[in-house]
Amino acid sequence: MTKADAPSSPPTQRVTSHDVSREAGVSQSAVSRAFTPGAHISPETRQRVLEAARKLGYQPNAIARSLVTQRSGIVALIVGDLHNPFYPQALSQFAQALEHRGKRALLLTHDARRDVQETLDAASRYQIEAAIVFPTRLNSTLPSLGDVSKGGVPVLLFNRHLPGRNLLSVACDNYAGGRLAAQVLLDAGATQLAFIGGDPETSTHQDRLRGFEERLREAGLDLLAAPSHAFQYDWGVQATLDLHAAGHVPDAVFGANDIVAIGVLDALRQLGRRVPEDVSVIGFDDIQESARLAYRLTTIRQPLEIMIEDALRALDDPRPGNGPSLHPGELIWRDTVKRYDTAKGQT
Amino acid sequence: MTKADAPSSPPTQRVTSHDVSREAGVSQSAVSRAFTPGAHISPETRQRVLEAARKLGYQPNAIARSLVTQRSGIVALIVGDLHNPFYPQALSQFAQALEHRGKRALLLTHDARRDVQETLDAASRYQIEAAIVFPTRLNSTLPSLGDVSKGGVPVLLFNRHLPGRNLLSVACDNYAGGRLAAQVLLDAGATQLAFIGGDPETSTHQDRLRGFEERLREAGLDLLAAPSHAFQYDWGVQATLDLHAAGHVPDAVFGANDIVAIGVLDALRQLGRRVPEDVSVIGFDDIQESARLAYRLTTIRQPLEIMIEDALRALDDPRPGNGPSLHPGELIWRDTVKRYDTAKGQT
Repeated sequence: MTKADAPSSPPTQRVTSHDVSREAGVSQSAVSRAFTPGAHISPETRQRVLEAARKLGYQPNAIARSLVTQRSGIVALIVGDLHNPFYPQALSQFAQALEHRGKRALLLTHDARRDVQETLDAASRYQIEAAIVFPTRLNSTLPSLGDVSKGGVPVLLFNRHLPGRNLLSVACDNYAGGRLAAQVLLDAGATQLAFIGGDPETSTHQDRLRGFEERLREAGLDLLAAPSHAFQYDWGVQATLDLHAAGHVPDAVFGANDIVAIGVLDALRQLGRRVPEDVSVIGFDDIQESARLAYRLTTIRQPLEIMIEDALRALDDPRPGNGPSLHPGELIWRDTVKRYDTAKGQT
Repeated sequence: MTKADAPSSPPTQRVTSHDVSREAGVSQSAVSRAFTPGAHISPETRQRVLEAARKLGYQPNAIARSLVTQRSGIVALIVGDLHNPFYPQALSQFAQALEHRGKRALLLTHDARRDVQETLDAASRYQIEAAIVFPTRLNSTLPSLGDVSKGGVPVLLFNRHLPGRNLLSVACDNYAGGRLAAQVLLDAGATQLAFIGGDPETSTHQDRLRGFEERLREAGLDLLAAPSHAFQYDWGVQATLDLHAAGHVPDAVFGANDIVAIGVLDALRQLGRRVPEDVSVIGFDDIQESARLAYRLTTIRQPLEIMIEDALRALDDPRPGNGPSLHPGELIWRDTVKRYDTAKGQT
């Protein structure tokens, strides 16, 4: 289309609910009810309104309505490290779960080393009805968008908690998961157990380590080593190489999450150590990559779907102070931990 | 906090720009200008307004303002298959690039097998100022939110194009990338070349295949095989096993994207075929996983950062009909393709 073909008329007016009510021969209030889920309206009237709307190209304005109802249907998702595939997976499932409820996700990125409050404040300018925060460190200040009982916006921490603080949160039971990882490796006959940690300032790291270490102590064992730094592949590789270089040769490794454990597996392959014959490895999360034939990582799965449902239910009826909601992880057996009977045969 | 402690007073009133103007001793219009990027206001007045706003806890309401300015700062990102790690990576970078421009991403998920128009219509209810669509099939109807010259919302296809259609789009030059993949494998001395495709209804699949096949024909070679199905790991594994079972033994494979190529590598490992000694493999995208020690995949990188900048620039000044904007892919040498000199030494 050349410029000369372009229409010279001014931009056409947006179609309003008034136009639709005239076209359908119903009241404006009927038009509004036709577009409100659960509103009282007869199927015939609704049908008439929808046909008129389609004919005129009318789209009800969800944002304008939100100024009246104070329910925008927009939930802020504040995400951090998308290099850990666990988060994109959670994000995608959250977006879908919100859509099933007729809501939408406003996405904000956040650097976990900074204070999450400034990102929350930015989100609050978009008339959000709730905020879900993925990345938090234990030394963070208490994120808040006001007292919910006074009209503030509820904030929920996902996969994290800030202990002793009056906040909504949903997480996997990382302490119990750490104990379970220890149990699985002890059953495999391991005696030299290392923990390769993630970001030491996170509750996920600390709770998994505490559960792991306590279960080992009960079995009369000390940790061989527990280096920590970041929930990253490169760190998993480096920590494993460093451990061996320093003469700390584990017969079992618990990677603080799958992406770290996958780095551990690649480093062990490079060192010529056989998995699981020489060394057992277990992770945490059950990301897609863990099922690849090159890894087949035994791991503890976070029950993502249940956790997301729980988070959205909590936001529908926010009662801070109920403490964190914890969900047990599920052991996923693959090929990186020696089986119990095999292990017994070798002791 | 027990119930008895809960305050019985009604929800407090939201702080308005009127309160801020009174506190700062300036006009309400000055308050509005202080929160509008690029608006004309003296640094002193702006400072006074910001201090008063901070003191009162005032947050300008971006949504309410959007009803006046028609610029909400919200850009819809319509995403599909988040199982392909390329998309979460693009999504995260898009969200950050939008934030650098003072805008935000409204996230909508979409099943690529359905018509994208219904998802676009849903997005348009949120006063978006632009929409970016990731998943499209060539048989899709033309997605649109009205004529931009008449006040419609611009729509841009990312990593896809619908040929002969008057739409904004930004993509990698997939045809040239397909030719490059063929050239690299021919240089490695390959003569039995297979293409393991993705979703055959996508422009990415078709353009990469066309470029690959045309370059082979110029070299006097036919494709050994070109099965296609989906951009998925499991498909890459299965297609490779099927190919060998049928007696079509390639000495080089072009995976339609990295996630397919990684499936090819895992299947070859299972078949006992050495990479790159027995068979060279090349992918497309350069996702994070491709750099893992277990894969070290040679691939063609999509210049994601440049493509995203280009997309956002195009949406600032949408002129449909300029045809798709194409960016050349970059060859990333790793370990899965025989080197030229090694190859020559073997012929």
